[in-house]
Amino acid sequence: MKKVAVILSGSGVFDGAEIHEAVLCLLALEQNGASWHCFAPDIPQHHVLNHITGEEMDQTRNVLVESARIARGNIQDITQLNAEEYDALLLPGGFGVAKNLSDFAFKGANCSINPNVTTVCKRFAELGKPAGYVCIAPALIPFIYDGGVKGTIGQDADTESAFNAAGGEHVRCQVDQVVYDERHNVFSTPAYMLAQSISEAASGINKLVAQLVAKA
Amino acid sequence: MKKVAVILSGSGVFDGAEIHEAVLCLLALEQNGASWHCFAPDIPQHHVLNHITGEEMDQTRNVLVESARIARGNIQDITQLNAEEYDALLLPGGFGVAKNLSDFAFKGANCSINPNVTTVCKRFAELGKPAGYVCIAPALIPFIYDGGVKGTIGQDADTESAFNAAGGEHVRCQVDQVVYDERHNVFSTPAYMLAQSISEAASGINKLVAQLVAKA
Repeated sequence: MKKVAVILSGSGVFDGAEIHEAVLCLLALEQNGASWHCFAPDIPQHHVLNHITGEEMDQTRNVLVESARIARGNIQDITQLNAEEYDALLLPGGFGVAKNLSDFAFKGANCSINPNVTTVCKRFAELGKPAGYVCIAPALIPFIYDGGVKGTIGQDADTESAFNAAGGEHVRCQVDQVVYDERHNVFSTPAYMLAQSISEAASGINKLVAQLVAKA
Repeated sequence: MKKVAVILSGSGVFDGAEIHEAVLCLLALEQNGASWHCFAPDIPQHHVLNHITGEEMDQTRNVLVESARIARGNIQDITQLNAEEYDALLLPGGFGVAKNLSDFAFKGANCSINPNVTTVCKRFAELGKPAGYVCIAPALIPFIYDGGVKGTIGQDADTESAFNAAGGEHVRCQVDQVVYDERHNVFSTPAYMLAQSISEAASGINKLVAQLVAKA
């Protein structure tokens, strides 16, 4: 059975991992005959948002501890993730990618990425193992791979500009499409960067995961 | 399009709604051509658990606000839920059903249910509209429906005893099966009361939702 490492960034679209995308990723991995293994950094969230009002809450939450809600406790600190032991890597989206795994939400092309996340993602790249980035997570791709790497976040002009400014080559696509950079063995799909419903998000995620597992 | 009201109980299996089940329910509703409409009570959670260690955290969280993470903010207070406006009712599981919507986790057959939840569930029953209860949520069924109502939580002896003591008739079943009480128009399936994986949970949930929408 192929083993796929999944990096989560909290639990909730506005301050963590996008819950629908994360669950769809885990489901699709199982349905394609792979096992999933969740990891997250053991760091404080950038902030905690009330998901009804959008207002910041006077709380601190930990990215690993909150991610464990999606993983039903079956999760490890990302420092325990050894790329040699897994066949592929998968990152669901959500603002947590751009606020907790990196500061892309605030700095765009000038962002920095959590060093432990960078180490893991670059190791999968060095080993030539396939990786899939979903929703806003592809914003990290130009920082992990060599210049000219292709990826998609859908159609959003600002994110596209930042992707290109960081050295990538953004490819526009629809919600049910997957962009594959063959040279770097990396997949991306827009999911909730474009999706208006769970089933729309699933349309691209299911394709990406099937292709990812096939390459693993 | 059939409109289905979904009652959530937080966000996280050990102190709220089971996230996989909730997302699988929303996805299956869409895939069966229905629209979903989330609701939750605006009350404090019974407690907040660290989903890695299982230990209680020194925090308070609100059931409606946390449920909004699963619903991407698209959720209302359960007091706004008018059964006349919806075609069916659906309750995913998670300990939140037994700790927040009720105190079944602590009192079993002697439990009490949040009065706003009771009012809504009983109104769907009175109107003869179909309802689906998933995982531990069927524990509420004997308190909503007349004596002898059939339901399942799978194979768990203690929960089965409490179900029967509360006036229901528990029917044992497998993870991919659905129990239907025709007289009361109520469906139940064990999901993570038995499931060892997301795809196992999906096997029963997908059947339940398809049958629920067909009756709606």
